Amino acid sequence: MARTADAKQKLREICRLAARVFYEKGYDGASMQDIAKAVGLTKAGLYHHVASKDRLLFEIMNYGMDILDEAVLEKVKRIADPREKLRQTIIGHIDLIVRARDQEITVILHENRSLKKAFRKKLNARKKDYIQYLEGLIAQVQAQAGGHPLVSPRLASFALLGIINWLYQWYSPEGPVKQSELAQIYVDFFFRGLLGTA
Amino acid sequence: MARTADAKQKLREICRLAARVFYEKGYDGASMQDIAKAVGLTKAGLYHHVASKDRLLFEIMNYGMDILDEAVLEKVKRIADPREKLRQTIIGHIDLIVRARDQEITVILHENRSLKKAFRKKLNARKKDYIQYLEGLIAQVQAQAGGHPLVSPRLASFALLGIINWLYQWYSPEGPVKQSELAQIYVDFFFRGLLGTA
Repeated sequence: MARTADAKQKLREICRLAARVFYEKGYDGASMQDIAKAVGLTKAGLYHHVASKDRLLFEIMNYGMDILDEAVLEKVKRIADPREKLRQTIIGHIDLIVRARDQEITVILHENRSLKKAFRKKLNARKKDYIQYLEGLIAQVQAQAGGHPLVSPRLASFALLGIINWLYQWYSPEGPVKQSELAQIYVDFFFRGLLGTA
Repeated sequence: MARTADAKQKLREICRLAARVFYEKGYDGASMQDIAKAVGLTKAGLYHHVASKDRLLFEIMNYGMDILDEAVLEKVKRIADPREKLRQTIIGHIDLIVRARDQEITVILHENRSLKKAFRKKLNARKKDYIQYLEGLIAQVQAQAGGHPLVSPRLASFALLGIINWLYQWYSPEGPVKQSELAQIYVDFFFRGLLGTA
């Protein structure tokens, strides 16, 4: 399905605003009418851009994965050293979760339950790609460090995802710990956990 | 508010069954009628036990914190050595998240959004108690290990909570990693992250 850049841009705008509505009212509690109103479209106008509420939820989650690709993976892809690449990936992912702009989207991304099966499958494939990327990178870091790995790349990846994705539950950039400080501390914590030394 | 043991037991049963309904239909999507049906009560009978849907959600979350107290904290409270106590706390908390029986409850526990302000305040106070318990224990472990702490007890606590609470997103006890193995690996991972050595 080819989309013009304009249509893609419009869909993203709808996703951002709809994410806020779902976040506030819950997926089941929000109607397409609520969303049309928030987006500034008629209901018919909204349906022109997105065929169903279920599809809209999928598009929001898909957009969340797009942001991860664009804001994190795209930026680190030219880094050759696996350790530095992993470090920058962690910093980028933390930034994505912590920054207010996309918070509703990143929260919704992990509420997989409401999504119909075909959509869930597509989304899980994208999440799996990211996990495999992390696993590969972690394995390279372990190989570079030498010795017997202390933890499988898979379990280390999920520990890392847990630490980062949990941030939305408690971390506030206005609190006592600055984001740059937080990122540095967790990078070091993770590398110690992974290698026994930061 | 004094409750008889019977009434408390009944409320817990309602909480367990209602948690499943909320989990499947979403908080907004589930009606008190749906819940009465799942519990095997009339709607009037359900309202006899719990005054509102909002109150019910609070009772479910409160029950989740009760389980944490009973299944984890109660069991470790006589352990004197801070390191062993932390180790057993991690193992117990992982068990709580991973075991199927209470999964809906532990998932719902972290969906704070739907809860009205007064309830949310009470619940957050209980969560805060647990975090302070972890912080205190971690500080003791660091003091015992000596040297300058590598990470604040607070950031270490939230890293630990992230690793553990994220498990419901991906871990299956039927998968290749046994629960006891998982717990051991994450205990070691956390202690390395905390102290630089497991």
